[in-house]
Amino acid sequence: MIGVDWGITQLRAYQIDSSGAVLASRSAPKGIMAVSGGDFAGALESVIADWLDREAEPILMSGMIGSRQGWVEAAYATCPARPADVAAALVELTWGSGRRGLICPGLTCRDADGVPDVMRGEEVQIFGALAWQGDGTAAICHPGTHSKHVTIQSGAVIGFTTFMTGELFAVLREHSILGRTMAEGPVDWKAFDEGVARAQQGSAWLHHLFGARTRVLMGDLLPASEADYLSGMLIGHELASAGGNGAVTVIGAPELAERYLRAFKQLGRVARGLPGETATVKGLRLIHDLAINRKR
Amino acid sequence: MIGVDWGITQLRAYQIDSSGAVLASRSAPKGIMAVSGGDFAGALESVIADWLDREAEPILMSGMIGSRQGWVEAAYATCPARPADVAAALVELTWGSGRRGLICPGLTCRDADGVPDVMRGEEVQIFGALAWQGDGTAAICHPGTHSKHVTIQSGAVIGFTTFMTGELFAVLREHSILGRTMAEGPVDWKAFDEGVARAQQGSAWLHHLFGARTRVLMGDLLPASEADYLSGMLIGHELASAGGNGAVTVIGAPELAERYLRAFKQLGRVARGLPGETATVKGLRLIHDLAINRKR
Repeated sequence: MIGVDWGITQLRAYQIDSSGAVLASRSAPKGIMAVSGGDFAGALESVIADWLDREAEPILMSGMIGSRQGWVEAAYATCPARPADVAAALVELTWGSGRRGLICPGLTCRDADGVPDVMRGEEVQIFGALAWQGDGTAAICHPGTHSKHVTIQSGAVIGFTTFMTGELFAVLREHSILGRTMAEGPVDWKAFDEGVARAQQGSAWLHHLFGARTRVLMGDLLPASEADYLSGMLIGHELASAGGNGAVTVIGAPELAERYLRAFKQLGRVARGLPGETATVKGLRLIHDLAINRKR
Repeated sequence: MIGVDWGITQLRAYQIDSSGAVLASRSAPKGIMAVSGGDFAGALESVIADWLDREAEPILMSGMIGSRQGWVEAAYATCPARPADVAAALVELTWGSGRRGLICPGLTCRDADGVPDVMRGEEVQIFGALAWQGDGTAAICHPGTHSKHVTIQSGAVIGFTTFMTGELFAVLREHSILGRTMAEGPVDWKAFDEGVARAQQGSAWLHHLFGARTRVLMGDLLPASEADYLSGMLIGHELASAGGNGAVTVIGAPELAERYLRAFKQLGRVARGLPGETATVKGLRLIHDLAINRKR
C-alpha cells in the first residue's frame, strides 16, 4: 500500500508492506500551505508519480490534507472512536485517469466545559501506537505545535485535550519581550528542570512567564539558558494540568520527545517514547486494512 | 513642580501645583525607545524647554527613563517600600547650564519561589493612589502590557506580582493561529464574560487558549467575538491566580480598566477604578515633596 502523511508544511509518502514495514519513503516541503491553486494532485504526483503508476489500490492520506484548506474536507469522526470508525469515515476521491485516494477524517470531542477539541493526523499515529504496543496503553501524549493528551479505553480514543504549548513557545521567543533577553546556546537541562519545577508552584502562569525575563535581568539565569527555562515551564504547566498518573506513551520526534520524557519523569510518571514515523506507518497500515476488509 | 512620566513609547509632562492639581500637561511620542543617540536632554527640551526656563526646582521623572536603556539607571528600591524610600533613592542628574533632574527608582521584590519581580513607573502611581484614597487601600491592580497586582500594608508596598497578560494577548492575536480566525467587531461583553468564566474551570490554560480557535471553527463563537473571549480568558486567569478577596483599586486607562472591573465583579470582588493619570500626578507630587523636605 501507499500511505501519505500530508501536513501543513510537509508531505511524507511511504510504501508499506503487509507487515507494516516501510519499503520506501519520500518527503518534500509540499505541505498543504505550499500547494498553489489547489493542485493537490499535481503536488502528489510530483513526489510519487512513479509509485502511482504501479499501484492498483487507492492511496491512503492523513493529516491536514483532509481539512477545509486541503484537497477534500473529511468531516471529523466523534469520540469515542476506534480505528474501524476512522476506516468507515474515509472520504474517497479520484483524479486523472482512474487514480484513487482515501482521506482520513480527524477526530473531535468536547471537554468538561463543552468546548470542542479537534485533531487531524495524530489519530492515525495514536491507532498505530495502540496496534504496536497492544491494548494496555491508556494514555498517549503527542507533543508538538498543538500538543495532544489522549485517553484510551479498550482500544478506543475516549477523549483528548489540546495544549498550545509548542506554538506559545515559538511566539513568545520570536515576538515577545522574553525573546529579547534570550541568547543561543547548548541545551541547559538544569534550566529546563527548573522551569518544570516552577510550573508546579501554583497556577500563576502569566506571572511565571514574566519570571523568565526577570531572572535574566537580575542575574539569576543566563541569557543562553532562558529558552530552556521557558520550554520547561510551558511543558511543566501542560503536564501538570493534563493530569493523570499512570504510564504514558510519548509519540513524537526524538528531540522534542526527550523533553517530554524528562518532564514526565520529574513529575513521577512512567513514560516511554515511540518515534512519530513508526506510529504513522503502523496506523496507515491498520486503517488501510480495515478499509479494504470493510469493502470486501 | 514639573513631573514627567517617561515610558517606552510616550513622554508625558505635567506642571503640578502644591495641591496636586495639574496646571498644564504635554505629551509626545518620545518614549525612551524613540530617543536616538541617547539625547534624552534634547528630547525633553523639545517638549518642555519653555517650562524648564522658568523652573528652579529639579524636575522629577518616573518610568523607564530610569532603566538601563534610559537616561541614567536608577537602581530598584527593595520591598517593603514606602514613598519615603523612593524619595530617598532618587538619582540626581544635571545637564545644560545648570538644569537638574531627579529620576525615580523602580521597585523589586521576590515571590514565594524566590523569583525576582520588578516594576518601574507603576510605583509612583501606586503611591499616588494611596495618597488620594487613604491608608485603607490594601490591594491595587495595575493592568497593562505587564499587569501588576500589589499588596499594601500601612502605606507600604509589601510585595507585588507581574502578569504578562497584555503582551500575551497582543502576541497571540498578531502572531499565533488564534489571530487567523479573529475578525474585527464591537466589544462582545458576553464573549468576554464567557472567557472569564472559562478561566475559572481549572488550570489547563494552554488548553483554554486553543479553545478560542476550536469554538470558532465549530461554530460555537463568532470570529468577531474571539478576541473578547480571549481577552476575558487571559484576564480571568490573571485574577484567579492573583488571589485575594478584599476590595481592590484598579489603576489604568478607562477602556482597559473597564474590562478588569467587570472581571473582578464576576469573581465577586469589590473593585473601583482610578484613572492612571490622576494616580501619576498625585504620586509625582508626593515623591517630590518628600524629596524636597528631605533636603531641608
